[in-house]
Amino acid sequence: MSLEITFLGTGAAFPSPARGASALVLRREGQCWLFDCGEGTQTQLMRSHLRAARITKIFITHLHGDHIFGLPGLLCTLSLQSSPDASSKAPVDIYGPLGLRSFLWRSLELSHSQLLFPYAVHELVPTPDQCPPEEFKDFSGWDRGEGLPQGPPGRVVELEPGEDSYVLVEDEQLVVRAFRLFHRVPSFGFVLEEKPRPGKLDVQKLKDLGVPPGPLYGKLKSGAAVVLENGRMVSPREVLEEPVPGRKVCVLGDCSAPLGDTALRLCWQADLLVHEATLGDSLGDTARQRGHSTPGTAAELARRCRARRLVLTHFSQRYRPAGQHGDTDTEVTELRRQAEAVLAGQEVTLAEDFMTVEIPLRK
Amino acid sequence: MSLEITFLGTGAAFPSPARGASALVLRREGQCWLFDCGEGTQTQLMRSHLRAARITKIFITHLHGDHIFGLPGLLCTLSLQSSPDASSKAPVDIYGPLGLRSFLWRSLELSHSQLLFPYAVHELVPTPDQCPPEEFKDFSGWDRGEGLPQGPPGRVVELEPGEDSYVLVEDEQLVVRAFRLFHRVPSFGFVLEEKPRPGKLDVQKLKDLGVPPGPLYGKLKSGAAVVLENGRMVSPREVLEEPVPGRKVCVLGDCSAPLGDTALRLCWQADLLVHEATLGDSLGDTARQRGHSTPGTAAELARRCRARRLVLTHFSQRYRPAGQHGDTDTEVTELRRQAEAVLAGQEVTLAEDFMTVEIPLRK
Repeated sequence: MSLEITFLGTGAAFPSPARGASALVLRREGQCWLFDCGEGTQTQLMRSHLRAARITKIFITHLHGDHIFGLPGLLCTLSLQSSPDASSKAPVDIYGPLGLRSFLWRSLELSHSQLLFPYAVHELVPTPDQCPPEEFKDFSGWDRGEGLPQGPPGRVVELEPGEDSYVLVEDEQLVVRAFRLFHRVPSFGFVLEEKPRPGKLDVQKLKDLGVPPGPLYGKLKSGAAVVLENGRMVSPREVLEEPVPGRKVCVLGDCSAPLGDTALRLCWQADLLVHEATLGDSLGDTARQRGHSTPGTAAELARRCRARRLVLTHFSQRYRPAGQHGDTDTEVTELRRQAEAVLAGQEVTLAEDFMTVEIPLRK
Repeated sequence: MSLEITFLGTGAAFPSPARGASALVLRREGQCWLFDCGEGTQTQLMRSHLRAARITKIFITHLHGDHIFGLPGLLCTLSLQSSPDASSKAPVDIYGPLGLRSFLWRSLELSHSQLLFPYAVHELVPTPDQCPPEEFKDFSGWDRGEGLPQGPPGRVVELEPGEDSYVLVEDEQLVVRAFRLFHRVPSFGFVLEEKPRPGKLDVQKLKDLGVPPGPLYGKLKSGAAVVLENGRMVSPREVLEEPVPGRKVCVLGDCSAPLGDTALRLCWQADLLVHEATLGDSLGDTARQRGHSTPGTAAELARRCRARRLVLTHFSQRYRPAGQHGDTDTEVTELRRQAEAVLAGQEVTLAEDFMTVEIPLRK
């Protein structure tokens, strides 16, 4: 089962012709999940091989404009292009910090936009220690008691104290959790973790045990024991190979650091860690002041949680693209060298707009 | 004095790689005035020869997303790139329908954006007859009495009943008025009209009358009479050539038609009329239902007000660019033919992204 990420915008602070504002798409089983939606994301989608209509979930790391200003427009365009039966489809789930519902709802109301498909906004309640105290804003009272029309449905998701994380999605195949980052404003990281899948059926063993091909195979594969006509009970354990371990993908929002050790635990041995590296190591103080990371910071987290692959993104527009000439500014490839120095030569990837990274099955 | 318009987005409904969402820049005396600001306008500006930092006024025709969703992002980027003395500069004036202040203020608050330069939002109060009754929304009570921080300063501009228009800007050189259009939501047209400028000084006459070169020339040019040493009074009329007539540029928002005859009066003999033509004449009923115009509708207004030049814009993304191949859809040039048929062969211009149209001085 293929699992891949396509970067749609890899620039910091604002979109430019060289790098779009933050957005990436995770594609799995034909579904597209969008992470962040900076201005211009819908146009970047049109330029890519992806189909916007396949988006079923949207995750917003934090409420800075370069991560959300493309969201109202994308939803309006999805609505314009939706099929006539759109209203009966499952809602598009949108996850993000408290305040996202108000931003979306106000933008849609004031622009006279009515979406023809259902959607729900699930808001994560941040904690005040996710940003400098003077920057923390409490949006929990907004849009209440004004006698205005109802906004979209959705849950309010609180931090689970014992887990120090937020459970956003869970089904038979996977779980998506959010954890807290420290930034100029409350920011989140998301971890998608596939559950282990049952191993392959060992056909030779099935034959040896006398299990007839057909529905019994399916039962065994799904984990149930079966009884043969001769009375012999066959347990799944006898005929299934080792379970296939799931993959883990971590997408972090802007941050100077994760909050506490939860990120380390949740991102442990991630197959893919997507981390921002807004400024180079030589500008480390400026980066931290602005709540951002350098390649060194990002690589240090990757090293500590033994990530199998690190992809850096969210580069200041000051870094010129690889291979482009220029005397005054630094080439972005310098950032890769800084990260690889920490990871003792393990290869680091620099995201580019429209780059696709595949996450192979674990062996 | 040069006066020109550059189109940044000429597509309807949403931005695409072929046509950006609505935006154009009028440039005069080194200042840039932006009309509409669809998503992606800041990136289109970067791709153009214009400098966003030169924008001193912004006019919004109506509140549909494809005309406003780029505004919060543009302002944030202008702020990021502003000079340290930005806070002491004259405010950027933003004009648009009632509700624009709430949209902007909410977007900036919820995205934790603080603009480092001053700005003011001046809201035009629409009238309910500017759209179908079921579409009219009254935003006048929004954001009041919520105990929230103050929004940006700005005027509320009411329709002047006698004039049936709104006066937005007036100085020695020009006046900008808005007038009402009929659309799915209240929409406006803007007319910039230069005041006639004093004619050139007739140097031969000045010599004949014995006026010494120097400050007296300036006084006469500015319209004041002067008295020579010999007691002779010289009036400006004696030494000035004919006044130079001003130019008139009209930019209309989305509409199926202007409301009443005011547009005709205000756009009379416009040097340039920018009018939407979302759909071709063969889709006239659909266009009207959606509150839009066809090339025929636009050209009819141009004909009636004897506009010197008509530029069509805001094309449905279904029309393929001129010269591009394709069997199923119509080439946009077909729309020009439809407009020219009404104007008895007078040349009509189809706007393209990044096209610049100069408005020459009148002779």
